[in-house]
Amino acid sequence: MTSIDNFEFAHEHRRDVVWMSQNTNTIPMPRAIKDAILRSVEESEYNLYPFKRGLSGLPEAVKEDLGLEEQDVLITNGGIEGEYMATRALLRPGDEVISTDPSFLPIHDQIAMAGARAVEIDIYREDYRLHADWANEAATARSRILLLIDPNNPLGSGYTRSEVRALAEVAKDHGLWVIHDITYRDFNPGHVLASEFYPDKTLISYSFSKGPGLAGMRVGALLGMPDALTPVKKYDTNVLGTNVLAQRAALAALQCKGEWLPMVRDIVRKNQEIIRTAVKKVKGCSLPVFPSMANMFVIDTAQTRVDPDAVEEHLLHDHLVHVRAGGYLSKRFGSRFVRVSFTIPTALCAKFGDAFPKVMEALASAKP
Amino acid sequence: MTSIDNFEFAHEHRRDVVWMSQNTNTIPMPRAIKDAILRSVEESEYNLYPFKRGLSGLPEAVKEDLGLEEQDVLITNGGIEGEYMATRALLRPGDEVISTDPSFLPIHDQIAMAGARAVEIDIYREDYRLHADWANEAATARSRILLLIDPNNPLGSGYTRSEVRALAEVAKDHGLWVIHDITYRDFNPGHVLASEFYPDKTLISYSFSKGPGLAGMRVGALLGMPDALTPVKKYDTNVLGTNVLAQRAALAALQCKGEWLPMVRDIVRKNQEIIRTAVKKVKGCSLPVFPSMANMFVIDTAQTRVDPDAVEEHLLHDHLVHVRAGGYLSKRFGSRFVRVSFTIPTALCAKFGDAFPKVMEALASAKP
Repeated sequence: MTSIDNFEFAHEHRRDVVWMSQNTNTIPMPRAIKDAILRSVEESEYNLYPFKRGLSGLPEAVKEDLGLEEQDVLITNGGIEGEYMATRALLRPGDEVISTDPSFLPIHDQIAMAGARAVEIDIYREDYRLHADWANEAATARSRILLLIDPNNPLGSGYTRSEVRALAEVAKDHGLWVIHDITYRDFNPGHVLASEFYPDKTLISYSFSKGPGLAGMRVGALLGMPDALTPVKKYDTNVLGTNVLAQRAALAALQCKGEWLPMVRDIVRKNQEIIRTAVKKVKGCSLPVFPSMANMFVIDTAQTRVDPDAVEEHLLHDHLVHVRAGGYLSKRFGSRFVRVSFTIPTALCAKFGDAFPKVMEALASAKP
Repeated sequence: MTSIDNFEFAHEHRRDVVWMSQNTNTIPMPRAIKDAILRSVEESEYNLYPFKRGLSGLPEAVKEDLGLEEQDVLITNGGIEGEYMATRALLRPGDEVISTDPSFLPIHDQIAMAGARAVEIDIYREDYRLHADWANEAATARSRILLLIDPNNPLGSGYTRSEVRALAEVAKDHGLWVIHDITYRDFNPGHVLASEFYPDKTLISYSFSKGPGLAGMRVGALLGMPDALTPVKKYDTNVLGTNVLAQRAALAALQCKGEWLPMVRDIVRKNQEIIRTAVKKVKGCSLPVFPSMANMFVIDTAQTRVDPDAVEEHLLHDHLVHVRAGGYLSKRFGSRFVRVSFTIPTALCAKFGDAFPKVMEALASAKP
């Protein structure tokens, strides 16, 4: 409830708020992206339905970005829509999906819609990643999917080549599908795709929201081998295609990726240092994962005994800095952390660096 | 197959094709709509996730447009997405949905996804509307929904107040939900909402694609009383919201509706006359519904024995005029008609007027 009200407040003060609450990216991007949108608007291209296969060149550009020439691409209204289709298509009541806690819980909601259950393996412990042997132990006759959010949201932990391979092999051993959610791949230079090891039953959920900052465009993709994608396409939620301006922006973003990716990674590195310095000033706070392989991580506040909802509340209303309390990402551990996103201009990240210790000090000293 | 290839061709020649194939609207609109989009782009508003409740003012503007202040509004990626959620939420395997033939078949596909079945009542006969007594006869213990596409796509037939009331009463008598698909409402000045007679279980599927020409934006809405919308929202396909540029355009379109609606209706009236004149020149062709209450109707070609696929093919490739063969809209009657949309500038409609008799003559004389 509080969180929803905070989003309403944040949207009302959109131009003034430092947006660290949703893993969005407000770093200025190359002008080519805006120009591609503006050209399409001036031509009134949006009068027509988009071509369902995807804007000419876009599916090909996605495949090239991933080095997956032989796969099929379904352009979707955001990465999460592909996961909606996949969970509907692949799950039956009583099925289980091997996942983690913390996780991106809206996907767990999708699993529940199908009458299935997310088995949430605790990864809020060293080294904050899903281990293959834990996944193997969690597998039962009811398991159907291994959901791998990599890099992990909210923790920021990334998986190595051997870890991805081991997880893919667990899935193969048990005949599971892998949904490899690579929303944050751009922030991990060493990222490896599960489809390399287990192409037949790996589906890749791809997003344009984070790297090039197109969250409000709602555009993403689902990839898989043609035979793997066919059953999913039967449950297509958008047979009339995806917003054409979003597709224009997405294509332009891939075409100038060489310009923005190094710049974004550099800013993310600097911002993490600013946040780390601020966190060090607060007794009892720590960063479970550093450096993050994503554009966010969590600040563990458990030892301070300060309520993360209060941290969100005060940072927003007193300092116009919006972070997110952990409850959105973990029912079990949500009271122990706040999540901060740092794909923002460094000057704005400095506001967080200034405000966070003040807020924590005020809240800690207000404790009985 | 042919049809898909034709769309690929049409998109490749987007700037030259007269687009009469998808009920889109390419009539130039008031500049305020474009300006709203451009402002949002320049502000990089798309960096952020849209506010899930809908852009400030948009749900309210939709309710005001319909005079339904007490209803809930879910902003969706096009009207069809609301119907996707509703069919998933309300149907169980074995259920039946009372619908028509012809119909907008992608909704029937959604019904099939839920394991249910569309009962297709023949309305390709005088007076090309679903009669309440036919709906009543079709109702069984398995019936769950009455799908009312009003005005009807592809026929262009509209329902009167007493007809809507009678259909709503049939639904009420049998405890059915009504999905009232009002995508083409703007073209029928006398349009009446089923929710007036049966608010508790009527869901309204609302679109911005046709009146203000925003098909490529993929934005629409689903409306219902709060208690009716709650079960549907559990299957929300877009918990992260709808494209923000689409919402900006939609809001601007409603704000200047007084400017474009009379202009669009006037053009639609003129274009229908042009098409009627052309159809009269072709022996064996007729217009089952005239005037249309939508932005399209069908041209019956059955007596000419010319294949509608050939009509689509030749109009497109020889004259750059794209209409749609009936197979997309009716398995049973699709070989008897082509559908033509006429929300296009009148000068372009004249191209159809010129080309249609020529194509029909050439195809008829090529017959053995």
